[in-house]
Amino acid sequence: MARRPRRKAEETREDILSMAEMLFRERGYVAVSIADISGALHMSPANVFKHFRSKVALIDAIAGRHLDNATERFVAFDEDLPPKEQLLRFVLRLLESHLQDIQKNPYIFEMVLSTIEAKLEAGNRYRARIEEKLGEIIRTGVAEGGYHCPNPERAAHTVADVLACVLHPILIARDDKDTLVHRAEEIVCMVDAALRNKAC
Amino acid sequence: MARRPRRKAEETREDILSMAEMLFRERGYVAVSIADISGALHMSPANVFKHFRSKVALIDAIAGRHLDNATERFVAFDEDLPPKEQLLRFVLRLLESHLQDIQKNPYIFEMVLSTIEAKLEAGNRYRARIEEKLGEIIRTGVAEGGYHCPNPERAAHTVADVLACVLHPILIARDDKDTLVHRAEEIVCMVDAALRNKAC
Repeated sequence: MARRPRRKAEETREDILSMAEMLFRERGYVAVSIADISGALHMSPANVFKHFRSKVALIDAIAGRHLDNATERFVAFDEDLPPKEQLLRFVLRLLESHLQDIQKNPYIFEMVLSTIEAKLEAGNRYRARIEEKLGEIIRTGVAEGGYHCPNPERAAHTVADVLACVLHPILIARDDKDTLVHRAEEIVCMVDAALRNKAC
Repeated sequence: MARRPRRKAEETREDILSMAEMLFRERGYVAVSIADISGALHMSPANVFKHFRSKVALIDAIAGRHLDNATERFVAFDEDLPPKEQLLRFVLRLLESHLQDIQKNPYIFEMVLSTIEAKLEAGNRYRARIEEKLGEIIRTGVAEGGYHCPNPERAAHTVADVLACVLHPILIARDDKDTLVHRAEEIVCMVDAALRNKAC
């Protein structure tokens, strides 16, 4: 029984997140106020503020829940394939997941923009997980002798940077899937060629 | 004298563009109406509509004027440098120019967003000019024997894609200049390594 109050607080937090996410998806981040969220949950705005001090904090938590789920999909992976093929599958999986997000959320742009200045924790964690996976693939390539790369972590960082044009919501929303898949293939080809060259 | 009316129309067009640009910079694209622009010029909204059918058409024309000026700076160039150095200087020059644009225009995000769906002519032309210059540098590298690239146009297209993370306003606004310059150096290094490898 001693744990009951904390558990209640966690449940309230989850209720707020789910309702906020639903309202943001329906009406857009800009149009929904903290009062709208508390009203829909029949609680006071003060109660919402106790858990989230701002709409940006809500976005961070919603994105965190979502992106942490997404990164779980990276864990099981095609580790017996050549590194180039591993890179490509990894990128295409991310691309597919981002395209689904964009399709499911018509207000994704304003949510993304609202997070740009804020440098949200959720985004940094997601990016770190992507770099980690890229680093693993590159180190596999180095261990197998195909890749020549003095610093796999640094290379993974740069590869994550160049993948923005096939992963960033703002950059992929205006192109169709075939174009994006082709672009991803070309980039992975270029990255693979660079990593197989001794110089970089 | 026969030419007089057409010249007048061109002047009116330029007046509208300059006033629209000034108001967009001051108050933001969303907050400024065609009626605001015509009012500030003491003309009728119908007169503005005769030249520009929408705010998006105005953005396209303003961006066109601006980006066409920017591309003129690409012409004189360091053609006796090694291709890697040419690539880097070209990218850093673009980056510098984009950072200045962002600094001068606090409403650049909403203007960029308003153009994403519209796939504006001005942006396509700018991108084409960048690809052209990248293609020239890559062909120079191939001619000198350092680069091994079966299709310089295709490679230039991919290089333009990967440069998004150091050139796209939405992706560069939250980082400081040193970070961006370092990122550009790493990407040019990776691109150069890929182009020197026979495989890509």
